[in-house]
Amino acid sequence: MDSPREDALADPEYRQAVVDLLGALAYAELSAFTQLVADSEEAPNHGLKARVCRLAVAEFGQYEDLVAGIRDLGADPDEAMAPFTRSIDDFHARTSATTWLEGLVKAYVGEGIAGDFYREVAAYVDPSTRALVHRAVDDDAQSDLVLEVVGNAIEADPRVAGRLALWGRRLVGEALSQAQHVAVERDGLASLLVGGVHGAGADLAELGRMFTRLTDAHTERMTRLGLSA
Amino acid sequence: MDSPREDALADPEYRQAVVDLLGALAYAELSAFTQLVADSEEAPNHGLKARVCRLAVAEFGQYEDLVAGIRDLGADPDEAMAPFTRSIDDFHARTSATTWLEGLVKAYVGEGIAGDFYREVAAYVDPSTRALVHRAVDDDAQSDLVLEVVGNAIEADPRVAGRLALWGRRLVGEALSQAQHVAVERDGLASLLVGGVHGAGADLAELGRMFTRLTDAHTERMTRLGLSA
Repeated sequence: MDSPREDALADPEYRQAVVDLLGALAYAELSAFTQLVADSEEAPNHGLKARVCRLAVAEFGQYEDLVAGIRDLGADPDEAMAPFTRSIDDFHARTSATTWLEGLVKAYVGEGIAGDFYREVAAYVDPSTRALVHRAVDDDAQSDLVLEVVGNAIEADPRVAGRLALWGRRLVGEALSQAQHVAVERDGLASLLVGGVHGAGADLAELGRMFTRLTDAHTERMTRLGLSA
Repeated sequence: MDSPREDALADPEYRQAVVDLLGALAYAELSAFTQLVADSEEAPNHGLKARVCRLAVAEFGQYEDLVAGIRDLGADPDEAMAPFTRSIDDFHARTSATTWLEGLVKAYVGEGIAGDFYREVAAYVDPSTRALVHRAVDDDAQSDLVLEVVGNAIEADPRVAGRLALWGRRLVGEALSQAQHVAVERDGLASLLVGGVHGAGADLAELGRMFTRLTDAHTERMTRLGLSA
């Protein structure tokens, strides 16, 4: 007897939607990896540089897990990532950090919103795919580092807070617009979200509520950072 | 009873020389990591990009092992790396690759020479330190990738070979001059090489022969790559 996951994946439309989800997330993790390593070059000392690199290496591990998940579905990882590279590259190009603190805030804000977004999408997939997605977007260690470093910087010079809050507002706009692009880039992923596949998706009203939830969670994260959203 | 390594490390001059050796190598690995990740951005496809990132992540693991080794000696990793950051940063600044293939050849040539150099220095230290150094400079997987990709590129367009051979000649000059800088940067490391510590070092004539060996090994590596040195 096939497992429930095997049953679901027998539907080619559902299988493609899962491949899309894992492909988008894999490319997001790979980009987060290279971006964090580039940001680490701006670290004020080797200790912090190494901590950022360590977080980056963890992202690469998550990328590798997702690639393995794509292969398990019989799909090609390169082809799975291809539809999403442009919107994710565009996001990074449009939000190029100019300081070490901006880079950290970008990682925190960007991956916070991406994490929430992919967890939302994963609500409509089989438990095993969902678990893979949840593992891939776990970034507690990164949040801890950013909260510590940015908190210290604001304490040392409160004027930093205003500039970073402004930066955060720019990031959230770009991140939400990127999430929207990723969601509509492929029929499969969009239909996952709006109930076209597997009968479990959200309707359009739910989609609107999802974006509200993403924004609310972002506001909470900025508050935790000591910044106004 | 103390182990032979403990005995040797009881000599503060020897201990400092070992800390210098591990510090220089740790910073070299950390720089190789960030450099490879930056190079990966130029890869022609995701498959190759991911392979380069995977090699970079392995370098980071080697960096972490060396940092643990420095801590085991009761030293601070940041302080251990500090004397060597300028010459290693200078090497990378003076040999900034402008194409994907140049980046690969640089990684192959640079880490080949660095590996030989650190293995030479490690000939004069205790077996446990030596084993740590040998593990850190192992880069077979990287050589395999470079040989494959550069070999294919030369096969597709033989004119590539001339340009890359020229690039290799520039790299070897910079790499040997960097090795010399690192060797003389600190009394401890220099005295390891010229027999001032622990009675097992080389004399100055041996040092000259070492540079000859480094150059010969480089020539062999270039030949394996299909390039004239």
